[in-house]
Amino acid sequence: MKKILLIGAGRSSASLVNYLLQNAASHNWHLRVGDLSLEMAQEKIHGNARASAFAFDIKNQQQRANEISQADIVISMLPAFMHGLVAKDCLRFKKNLVTASYVNEEMQAMDKDVREAGLLFLNEIGLDPGLDHLSAMQILDEIRGEGAKMLGFESFCGGLVAPENDNNPWNYKFTWNPRNVVLAGQGGAVKFVQEGQYKYIPYQKLFRRTEIIEIEGYGRFEGYANRDSLKYRSVYRLEDIRTIYRGTLRRVGFCRAWDVFVQLGATDDSYIMEGSETMTHRQFINSFLAYNLHDSVEIKLMHYLHIDQDSELMEKLKWLGIFDNTKVGLKDATPAQILQSILEKKWSLDEGDRDMIVMWHKFNYELNGKLHQRESSLVVLGDDAHHTAMAKTVGLPLGIATRLILEGKINLTGVIIPIHKQIYEPVLKELTQFGINFKEKITV
Amino acid sequence: MKKILLIGAGRSSASLVNYLLQNAASHNWHLRVGDLSLEMAQEKIHGNARASAFAFDIKNQQQRANEISQADIVISMLPAFMHGLVAKDCLRFKKNLVTASYVNEEMQAMDKDVREAGLLFLNEIGLDPGLDHLSAMQILDEIRGEGAKMLGFESFCGGLVAPENDNNPWNYKFTWNPRNVVLAGQGGAVKFVQEGQYKYIPYQKLFRRTEIIEIEGYGRFEGYANRDSLKYRSVYRLEDIRTIYRGTLRRVGFCRAWDVFVQLGATDDSYIMEGSETMTHRQFINSFLAYNLHDSVEIKLMHYLHIDQDSELMEKLKWLGIFDNTKVGLKDATPAQILQSILEKKWSLDEGDRDMIVMWHKFNYELNGKLHQRESSLVVLGDDAHHTAMAKTVGLPLGIATRLILEGKINLTGVIIPIHKQIYEPVLKELTQFGINFKEKITV
Repeated sequence: MKKILLIGAGRSSASLVNYLLQNAASHNWHLRVGDLSLEMAQEKIHGNARASAFAFDIKNQQQRANEISQADIVISMLPAFMHGLVAKDCLRFKKNLVTASYVNEEMQAMDKDVREAGLLFLNEIGLDPGLDHLSAMQILDEIRGEGAKMLGFESFCGGLVAPENDNNPWNYKFTWNPRNVVLAGQGGAVKFVQEGQYKYIPYQKLFRRTEIIEIEGYGRFEGYANRDSLKYRSVYRLEDIRTIYRGTLRRVGFCRAWDVFVQLGATDDSYIMEGSETMTHRQFINSFLAYNLHDSVEIKLMHYLHIDQDSELMEKLKWLGIFDNTKVGLKDATPAQILQSILEKKWSLDEGDRDMIVMWHKFNYELNGKLHQRESSLVVLGDDAHHTAMAKTVGLPLGIATRLILEGKINLTGVIIPIHKQIYEPVLKELTQFGINFKEKITV
Repeated sequence: MKKILLIGAGRSSASLVNYLLQNAASHNWHLRVGDLSLEMAQEKIHGNARASAFAFDIKNQQQRANEISQADIVISMLPAFMHGLVAKDCLRFKKNLVTASYVNEEMQAMDKDVREAGLLFLNEIGLDPGLDHLSAMQILDEIRGEGAKMLGFESFCGGLVAPENDNNPWNYKFTWNPRNVVLAGQGGAVKFVQEGQYKYIPYQKLFRRTEIIEIEGYGRFEGYANRDSLKYRSVYRLEDIRTIYRGTLRRVGFCRAWDVFVQLGATDDSYIMEGSETMTHRQFINSFLAYNLHDSVEIKLMHYLHIDQDSELMEKLKWLGIFDNTKVGLKDATPAQILQSILEKKWSLDEGDRDMIVMWHKFNYELNGKLHQRESSLVVLGDDAHHTAMAKTVGLPLGIATRLILEGKINLTGVIIPIHKQIYEPVLKELTQFGINFKEKITV
């Protein structure tokens, strides 16, 4: 019997646990699910005889060593900065490790030791990073296999709400970590390459430099740039590419409206606002506007940011309740924290709402002197509140990869990410059984 | 004979050294001027028998102890972060210390020890900080002495070029550290209080939230907010004040044009631009604009930032040469460093150009049930390339304060700033002999 140790049983682990339990009997697996909250761990395994739940404290060195030493493989769903502790014990007890997180410096530094121990630490195998690598590399390898020269690569991903539940003027609800949405794009200028030219976008212009993308059957989206496009040149072996751009998808009109908060300074997380506890939504917005004894907050905002009174943008802002006299009620909060709490009142999923994951790639290349363009897109809808599109697209790649490793079907070692055919091919193939299907389109 | 040790003989020390040497004979002083560059130190004392110049390395512990132990008073003109070393030795050898820098945490932490040793570490006695404290506190004490209640305090200061040498479309030349000008306003949101309401301005809006100020005989200026207004409530004992605002002065139109660089991201100092060494001015600007095969950099910029083709703003930008095919020639440079080098080609003082310092305060208060407003302004012009307005307004307050301390006329101890009558009164009085005169105006 093979023992799988899963650390971290948060929202995104439901589909992963289900996949592993569905395969547990036929593969003779036992699944140990550990979480700081025993209840959360128990909830995920719902009494399955092939699984056990336990309270797990990552900082408990004894427990960590004990659990990892007894496992055959470890899956860490902890926040990325905690992977180090797990990885070190995996190395010590010679266990393979799977995560959905970006490889950080600490993880990368272990590569040599991991390889020498004959182990595999497979990271970035969730949604983004994860499915983006799998699906992009499959097509990139195919195109390059034909002898083509890659000219451009664009890739976008977004977590949105399913069309039938998309019923607010922003066409957006929080389906994932709201804090990350509020802080998106902060921390340094965006860098990318377009037609061989380096391009830079500062935060204050990021949400006004969007690109429109259309996906058959799902309509139009807009994408704003991610900060990290350039590093994918080496990751995907695209060093000479003339255009590379990665971004995040929203429904059209979202970014222009979000930019209002950026311009006001309402997404700033670097200082505490005076009197946030007794402040109202209206006072919050007013604190970013010039003082005037008579003018309303609405007219000052419209004038400051050149917003027409009859615009959809103004409708979006009013619908959010930012001009209401509702109390914020957060003590010693930053602007970003206050904004998040205002948004959470309106952008939360309703009972029965399903989420939607959208991924889109565009490949431009030259083959036999001719220019070609291909697009690849994926739309995944959530099944229910637990098996969301996010949980499925993060958890299933993780689960399938874990199975492949346990079955000895991956002969790679070291700290790696899933850009290898022996990983992306079987994972993408099995994902189609779960309705996770990329659609391809030749557009030029 | 009293020995004065001056550490740091940069641009701003010329007027200070002159003042001290003018007083050296009558007061029986000897001035030791130390700088990393012996030449720079020698240049400042121009062979005066009452002075000696020497090469000084602040990191040389032996030399530092030696020089400080033999002095009667120490003036440090080093960058603020280096004052710590000097201050510790001043405490050790029981010497008074004078600086023109903001009191940082390290300096403040020494307050108790300094007081117990019966010493005086007088900081923030240059221009800004310095003259602003002296002139504001004199009037504040006067107003409060009449029994008035302070309602509002605004204070602005700027380093500009003298009107007769003000011959470019920006009405600006670098008269001080260009790097500080390029980075001005970065590092956190501006905070101030207006009519009892806390107001916040993010960097991306700072240069569009200006205030117009008029000074008789010198015309109109515009001011943008400094980051630090709130701390002056406690410094000036204005805890209950309803409006407090501090800012920096430029000529009208400067800020709107400067905002172009802010919006582009051209003032960013956080990353290295690819290929900065071979990049042209034009390519630098283009790297912040969307790619287009045909459109010119000019039309893209105008469209992006809503600039009219026939505007003065566009004239300012063209005059700077930002659209030229001139090479930047800086290796591995940040946007801010590249922008600075472009600006330095145009904004440098010409031979014979004089600089100008402008300071302006506004006081609003209630006395006997009536509202009052007073303004106080100062304009200082440079004498020549050495005795600039900046060097005079920084160096003379330092020099006069040093004299007062040596003469035993200040009976304060500890780490202090010049908000006390026994300092501001004699210093402001003596400054009038050098043409540094505040003009008052009762406006309401």
